[in-house]
Amino acid sequence: MDKKEIKNTDTFTLGGKEFTSRFILGSGKFSLDLVKACVEKAGAQIITLALRRANEGGLANILDYIPEDVTLLPNTSGARNAEEAVRIARLSREVGCGNFVKVEVVRDSKYLLPDNYETIKATEILAKEGFVVMPYMYPDLNAARDLANAGAACIMPLGAPIGSNKGLSTKDFIQILIDEIDLPIIVDAGIGRPSQACEAMEMGAAAVMANTAIATAGDVPAMAEAFKKAIEAGRSAYLSGLGRTIERGASASSPLTGFLQD
Amino acid sequence: MDKKEIKNTDTFTLGGKEFTSRFILGSGKFSLDLVKACVEKAGAQIITLALRRANEGGLANILDYIPEDVTLLPNTSGARNAEEAVRIARLSREVGCGNFVKVEVVRDSKYLLPDNYETIKATEILAKEGFVVMPYMYPDLNAARDLANAGAACIMPLGAPIGSNKGLSTKDFIQILIDEIDLPIIVDAGIGRPSQACEAMEMGAAAVMANTAIATAGDVPAMAEAFKKAIEAGRSAYLSGLGRTIERGASASSPLTGFLQD
Amino acid sequence: MDKKEIKNTDTFTLGGKEFTSRFILGSGKFSLDLVKACVEKAGAQIITLALRRANEGGLANILDYIPEDVTLLPNTSGARNAEEAVRIARLSREVGCGNFVKVEVVRDSKYLLPDNYETIKATEILAKEGFVVMPYMYPDLNAARDLANAGAACIMPLGAPIGSNKGLSTKDFIQILIDEIDLPIIVDAGIGRPSQACEAMEMGAAAVMANTAIATAGDVPAMAEAFKKAIEAGRSAYLSGLGRTIERGASASSPLTGFLQD
Amino acid sequence: MDKKEIKNTDTFTLGGKEFTSRFILGSGKFSLDLVKACVEKAGAQIITLALRRANEGGLANILDYIPEDVTLLPNTSGARNAEEAVRIARLSREVGCGNFVKVEVVRDSKYLLPDNYETIKATEILAKEGFVVMPYMYPDLNAARDLANAGAACIMPLGAPIGSNKGLSTKDFIQILIDEIDLPIIVDAGIGRPSQACEAMEMGAAAVMANTAIATAGDVPAMAEAFKKAIEAGRSAYLSGLGRTIERGASASSPLTGFLQD
Repeated sequence: MDKKEIKNTDTFTLGGKEFTSRFILGSGKFSLDLVKACVEKAGAQIITLALRRANEGGLANILDYIPEDVTLLPNTSGARNAEEAVRIARLSREVGCGNFVKVEVVRDSKYLLPDNYETIKATEILAKEGFVVMPYMYPDLNAARDLANAGAACIMPLGAPIGSNKGLSTKDFIQILIDEIDLPIIVDAGIGRPSQACEAMEMGAAAVMANTAIATAGDVPAMAEAFKKAIEAGRSAYLSGLGRTIERGASASSPLTGFLQD
Repeated sequence: MDKKEIKNTDTFTLGGKEFTSRFILGSGKFSLDLVKACVEKAGAQIITLALRRANEGGLANILDYIPEDVTLLPNTSGARNAEEAVRIARLSREVGCGNFVKVEVVRDSKYLLPDNYETIKATEILAKEGFVVMPYMYPDLNAARDLANAGAACIMPLGAPIGSNKGLSTKDFIQILIDEIDLPIIVDAGIGRPSQACEAMEMGAAAVMANTAIATAGDVPAMAEAFKKAIEAGRSAYLSGLGRTIERGASASSPLTGFLQD
Repeated sequence: MDKKEIKNTDTFTLGGKEFTSRFILGSGKFSLDLVKACVEKAGAQIITLALRRANEGGLANILDYIPEDVTLLPNTSGARNAEEAVRIARLSREVGCGNFVKVEVVRDSKYLLPDNYETIKATEILAKEGFVVMPYMYPDLNAARDLANAGAACIMPLGAPIGSNKGLSTKDFIQILIDEIDLPIIVDAGIGRPSQACEAMEMGAAAVMANTAIATAGDVPAMAEAFKKAIEAGRSAYLSGLGRTIERGASASSPLTGFLQD
Repeated sequence: MDKKEIKNTDTFTLGGKEFTSRFILGSGKFSLDLVKACVEKAGAQIITLALRRANEGGLANILDYIPEDVTLLPNTSGARNAEEAVRIARLSREVGCGNFVKVEVVRDSKYLLPDNYETIKATEILAKEGFVVMPYMYPDLNAARDLANAGAACIMPLGAPIGSNKGLSTKDFIQILIDEIDLPIIVDAGIGRPSQACEAMEMGAAAVMANTAIATAGDVPAMAEAFKKAIEAGRSAYLSGLGRTIERGASASSPLTGFLQD
């Protein structure tokens, strides 16, 4: 089996669709002309879309910039409780955005941390209505179990407060989700550098989502490509099996003795 | 200027030679048949070679596995002081390994930490004899300045004890070298994961060397490729300009208010 | 005002009682004869008590080892949902353990992470019944707000999985609770070393609880005293106002120039 | 043996003198009237003194503020090479500051990192002249061995650039010194918080020195006392034997099952 075939068989599945790209691109902070370049450089097969944004410019407008084979992931940003999230999701399906939805419910206006309880409620309702529900959540194992039971297609824990670029502040608890939950774990929010996205993948995450890290970079399309490569690198490292760590001491990589004595 | 041209112009120079690959591959822990696969997957243009190893199998033997356009970097592993390092380097040039040399002087047998003082002495002698000297060192700013004055072509600080896969334990001090020394800084030793190599590049390192992390992986050539991508990602991120970090609070990437009120 | 007076005025209040000691001692892992020594060395004014344990030996038995002026804090360990926690708390009050209760609801048997949702429900019921409710929780800002609204006397977020001695894995999120919640934040679970307890206090925590770190130490009473001092040190540092950090560069503490020129 | 006796027997020795306090106070950044308060609150038995400072105000002046039983530790700050350090040390002894000397040699004006090579040279000369030499150094195992061979009474590695308050950036390498060098290891420079001083002691350091962290605090004497307690806590924890850490999973401290079934 050659490399290309291997790559094609390393997929993850959401709502019956198979994806080979493990980089989910947020669109919320880009100008429209950057969206297209970023999708291309990122090799993204899923891109988020805030419905409000679609409304502002007209949905057709933003869709012009997104390739046809890319799956739209409308989010429920703006929702402050389950009910509002459900309304936004239904509206999104009605206007033709498909049945994928990223459930975001945020009560807090300072840290913008997701409300797990309301998110579980919305997930349950929407999953029953046939949505492919991708819930954004605070990485709490009990809540993740409830989301899985409620019918979520994956779990999207945050790495750090959204837009903070602080990286994997919740690392130990994301690892627990990866180890315990039998759904794809997609790290979302807070990832600020390609190295952090790479590390999340080395830990066994199924995918990583980024937006602010790219939108606030100096060269936006180049940063999108950097994330793509880092995510692929982390995935390969995870599949290859990382080497052991030595806590104290060292291990020579070259022969250290005898040369001059030969 | 298209991407390919950009890539070709992002080079660094050692001994008058320009390199586009920023991944230096150690060969010390590989079996010969893996060397070739790794060089290819890594896209490496420089590969280290312990002279003792060349001797064992016959130099021709190992060279069979290394593409012609790859620069050999013989190291002085086994040297316990400057004098021994100088002898090994001269021998290396005599047997046809060229004038590049990685100076390694190690007195300590437990942590295998380089001896900066002896390394400076060897560097001074070898630079005067026309070698392209790449000194492996403990990341100490004063020693790095002395190495630069002694004629080093670059500085190769360790990230952590060799073979430990512990990553960037010396991070704060490698950053100081990058900021203060006007030579390529190549992080060597201790790098255990692609994400760590990526982070070193994001900090502004010129290149990263790895050996144990790849040799102890489950799938050696796949890990070599993972490192290649991670290093490229980190380099692109550095060139693109990383976004700002928010220490406290968050920043929405999607519009959070008003949607339902429209 | 002399030092002693200052110390006496630095108190925090739970259920109308003022406490000067900011070290809450867990008793779950000690043999009875160590409990007394630890309370003394720790200077603890609050000590937890698992009801089951009281039952085993007879409540009178364990109380013999706890000084009279120390407030008992029965916990609901063993409860897997709100209903069970409520039953245990009521029983505890009936058998004479007072009206303080630490609500612990744990569904998961591997990581023993608290169930925030069931904890909120139990807190609401027990607060209405006049209990001084101290809920153990996973550090989630939204859940902490709900606990405050439900009538909790304080918030007890975990630092890391209980008994792990891993320290402040949840550091960034405990800081958010300290900054946002207008109740005492008492860090509970995971604290493995005095330095970690000290750091929690420097961040502004009101108190720290420890059990495993002390029970698994070589010299148990000496470790109890070490925690006491570290907690006092962290509290003083917080009150004194920590100095600024310099991210890049340094700042001489002694005059660096001119001496020899004078 | 009661506690007081235990405490008195836990000493470390420099130049034949026994010390029970493990907190060395820097005086470089304090106003004179704060020195006295700090020495008292810190319980320090050793206090550093920059000779230039003594000269400015007259040596008698500053000595008025330092209790008689406190050992003066003049430093060679201002020295840029071994020769200058030696001159300052001799001068210090001549003017009556005793035979303890902290050797500081700093070439770099931005990060103020010590020059290990010149420090070794000065140490060798001064040790032969009967000084009790306490060398400030960059934590490099090879240099520490050379300092020990040169006659140093202890090793004083930096935790981070002086005055930065960044803490134990060099942690892994200070641990190596503690494990490998048979002299007291005294962590000096960069320690910004009591929790960091506590951690250094938990690792097995013999003592900690601080100056900027205290001088830049809001309440200087209170911070001096906080450091004292944190250092004592860390020392006790080290002597008591720290408990084990659980990398994955948890360990209940209270009985989790059976209560309601009894």
